[in-house]
Amino acid sequence: MERTLGELAALLGGRLQGPADLVIQGIAAIDRATPRDITFISQKRFARLAAQSQAAAFIVGDDQADLGRPAIIVPNPYLAYAQVAALFAPPRPRWPGVSPLAFVGQGVEMGQEVSIFPLAYIGNGVRLGDRVTVMPGCFLGDRVQIGADTLLYPNVTVLERCQLGQRIIVHSGTVIGADGFGFVPGREGHQKIPQLGTVIIEDDVEIGANCAIDRGALGETRVERGVKIDNLVHLAHNVTVGAYSFLVAQAGVAGSTKLGKGVALGGQAGVVGHIELGDGVQVAAQAGVTHSIPAGQTVISSPARPHKEFAKFNAILPKLPEMYQRLKELERKMAELAADSAEEH
Amino acid sequence: MERTLGELAALLGGRLQGPADLVIQGIAAIDRATPRDITFISQKRFARLAAQSQAAAFIVGDDQADLGRPAIIVPNPYLAYAQVAALFAPPRPRWPGVSPLAFVGQGVEMGQEVSIFPLAYIGNGVRLGDRVTVMPGCFLGDRVQIGADTLLYPNVTVLERCQLGQRIIVHSGTVIGADGFGFVPGREGHQKIPQLGTVIIEDDVEIGANCAIDRGALGETRVERGVKIDNLVHLAHNVTVGAYSFLVAQAGVAGSTKLGKGVALGGQAGVVGHIELGDGVQVAAQAGVTHSIPAGQTVISSPARPHKEFAKFNAILPKLPEMYQRLKELERKMAELAADSAEEH
Amino acid sequence: MERTLGELAALLGGRLQGPADLVIQGIAAIDRATPRDITFISQKRFARLAAQSQAAAFIVGDDQADLGRPAIIVPNPYLAYAQVAALFAPPRPRWPGVSPLAFVGQGVEMGQEVSIFPLAYIGNGVRLGDRVTVMPGCFLGDRVQIGADTLLYPNVTVLERCQLGQRIIVHSGTVIGADGFGFVPGREGHQKIPQLGTVIIEDDVEIGANCAIDRGALGETRVERGVKIDNLVHLAHNVTVGAYSFLVAQAGVAGSTKLGKGVALGGQAGVVGHIELGDGVQVAAQAGVTHSIPAGQTVISSPARPHKEFAKFNAILPKLPEMYQRLKELERKMAELAADSAEEH
Repeated sequence: MERTLGELAALLGGRLQGPADLVIQGIAAIDRATPRDITFISQKRFARLAAQSQAAAFIVGDDQADLGRPAIIVPNPYLAYAQVAALFAPPRPRWPGVSPLAFVGQGVEMGQEVSIFPLAYIGNGVRLGDRVTVMPGCFLGDRVQIGADTLLYPNVTVLERCQLGQRIIVHSGTVIGADGFGFVPGREGHQKIPQLGTVIIEDDVEIGANCAIDRGALGETRVERGVKIDNLVHLAHNVTVGAYSFLVAQAGVAGSTKLGKGVALGGQAGVVGHIELGDGVQVAAQAGVTHSIPAGQTVISSPARPHKEFAKFNAILPKLPEMYQRLKELERKMAELAADSAEEH
Repeated sequence: MERTLGELAALLGGRLQGPADLVIQGIAAIDRATPRDITFISQKRFARLAAQSQAAAFIVGDDQADLGRPAIIVPNPYLAYAQVAALFAPPRPRWPGVSPLAFVGQGVEMGQEVSIFPLAYIGNGVRLGDRVTVMPGCFLGDRVQIGADTLLYPNVTVLERCQLGQRIIVHSGTVIGADGFGFVPGREGHQKIPQLGTVIIEDDVEIGANCAIDRGALGETRVERGVKIDNLVHLAHNVTVGAYSFLVAQAGVAGSTKLGKGVALGGQAGVVGHIELGDGVQVAAQAGVTHSIPAGQTVISSPARPHKEFAKFNAILPKLPEMYQRLKELERKMAELAADSAEEH
Repeated sequence: MERTLGELAALLGGRLQGPADLVIQGIAAIDRATPRDITFISQKRFARLAAQSQAAAFIVGDDQADLGRPAIIVPNPYLAYAQVAALFAPPRPRWPGVSPLAFVGQGVEMGQEVSIFPLAYIGNGVRLGDRVTVMPGCFLGDRVQIGADTLLYPNVTVLERCQLGQRIIVHSGTVIGADGFGFVPGREGHQKIPQLGTVIIEDDVEIGANCAIDRGALGETRVERGVKIDNLVHLAHNVTVGAYSFLVAQAGVAGSTKLGKGVALGGQAGVVGHIELGDGVQVAAQAGVTHSIPAGQTVISSPARPHKEFAKFNAILPKLPEMYQRLKELERKMAELAADSAEEH
């Protein structure tokens, strides 16, 4: 696969600077690019690496237009990088049709060009849209539904009746639709509450590796359109994740909590159950959210607090031992003064 | 599947209020129930939703007996909900007998009505009790033992010689019996300590998705009877989890630590190795327990502290910047007074 | 399998104390050893258990040489324990050759004595070194390379083009080479950045169960020689983990961060992206590292701080409510004194 610099400039709608017929065979980071690669500068701090870079050409913003190297000038170099990377990406893994080494249950409905790899298991009554890909080791329980162009990487488990939309990517090891953690506690044994609900994943969601998204106790757990979830994330039963939210690795959300649209959870952040995070709430890495948060707020620490409040006292914490000493010293002086004063009277 | 309200009242041993022959076809949350569903009120704050609910009938406590709707009155509505949910739950997934598409090793002993799905792997010398279910993608290592009525969801791994009791549920992706993390550290390479022990899971335990429970270095890692474990939980080698404990998602317990009976670990809580948590200890979400805790205590924060101690200073933390200013102001005034006083003498 | 005490002493290069022909059939913990087992004392606090121990013999240091029981005296009893455990460990699981129930793609190259279990999937163009073992449920993507003597436990996923070195152990459920979490954020949808890189795992690495190690966006994610990784650990795209580092369970490292050699991350510790931890940095359990750390430092807490700084103020925290009261009391006294002083003038 190769493209000329002129073709790439046209694709990106960017301004060409340099020879249109320069041949580009790949894209690479600025410090690793070879003379056959294009690279990109999306942050000023990387611009200093340009002089030593062996890259054939650069994708840059207007501020780097005077680079003196073959370049394509675009408004958003990072977005342009994503577009060029898509061009040079290897094609998706595909198995031609349904492998005879896969298990396919009864009453399965499949759209066109469905790709089922060897060693996948498709339960009874499953419905798969056009161009769905199910890789080895995947399990689709009875009556699972999956929309067009969705890709399940190897060893994904989707349990019965869960529904996935279109253009979804689920990475390996992720489990969708395991029972929620619901018990009636008792001294001598906790009674299981059967988890009768499902999971609904809307279109254009991507879910990382080894996540766990539990089915609703009653009703559903829902991940709305365009949400992106990193690795090892836990979503408990009846959680709702609002559209276009970002959940970074190892974050967890407890039962029945509702995240608004465009919420961001940092890595290893946790959110307790039965609360609401408003649209656009940002939760810092490792924060622990214990109550509902209004839209637009940024919270940090465990238990989570408004970012500004935390920053102020966090800066003082190292002075605490000194403050303690100064307090004792003041008390000593005060006692002296009080004694002097008493003496005088 | 349907039941009359009278039948449900009899099943629950509850007091019937309304028509005994009312037909119920399912159970649903109060805001989602249709006129064919029964619902329940287990917390007062949901009672206000009753008027608008379309539910055919309600499971309530004595305090809601005057609801004016068909109802079953019981001492514990939440427990009754669990019982009715069990009634309406779909049957467990079952494969009739041993699929010819499963791999079964030599010398495997199976009880009656064992269910082995396609694409499962059963090692040599495995012993399976009556009605054990092993779903696709599961791996049972050599000489694994599993008691009657235990259910392994898809893609569960149980490594050699581990023992699971009766009526256990293991959710997808969980790994039981991987090597513990044991090395003799060295400057140029850490020497692996072979992990010769096993894992023993006692009766009535439930383990969530994508957990990891390591085998003992010597001896065993043990999860006692009735313990409930959520998703993505880590138990290191030689840990003991006491009966009826609750471990919420993403909690982790380091090597050789012993949790007493009825211990609760909140989500993302961590416990260091080689300590003991007494019976009934409660560890808050995200807490980090660094030393043994006596029975009955509740601890919070990282490093973990008694809950009361933490609550007191945590409330003061936001005042820390102000305290610092007030301290400086006092020092200034003290200097003035001291100067005045010196002047006077 | 059995050995005489004399043979074991010779193997360990230790000093024999007691009958050389004493037969040893296993190794066990001091409180569990039977009269057929050898045990060891690696920490003084276990020495008090020796008198009641039924062990046939002991591996001890010079400080326990006067135990009065059959013993082997060595400089490092813990290391000697690891060596004896290796002797009594059951042999690795092996399948003789390539199972006809495995799927093997086209153009696969295999060394000698490769062991492929039933229900494994080997993609096109995969290269496997001598004595590689691939257990059931494993997936190796196209053009994956695996060095000699590497062992993949069941249900491991290695995605296309990733490279594993020699003598590596990967435990069940781990995913190597899923896409990194890379998106260009947008108000109405986040654009995926195709992840074109790979993962390189160097020789002698061990990786626990249910970990996730993402492929580089461009270039590679790299785990250097001899690194040991516990369960449920997350490594994001383009991370480098320096040789002989230790990553304890549930730790996570965000994108492009570089850990030096011999770094230790405690359990549930997190490290943000695009920073560097110098050689030998130690990060306490649950710490959250937000900026680069120079070589040799120990950090703790979230956000992470030097250990000494933290220990000082952490000890004062419980006094904070009392400090607040004392501060108010001082202010009251100061106001009185000031009033007195004003009165006098």
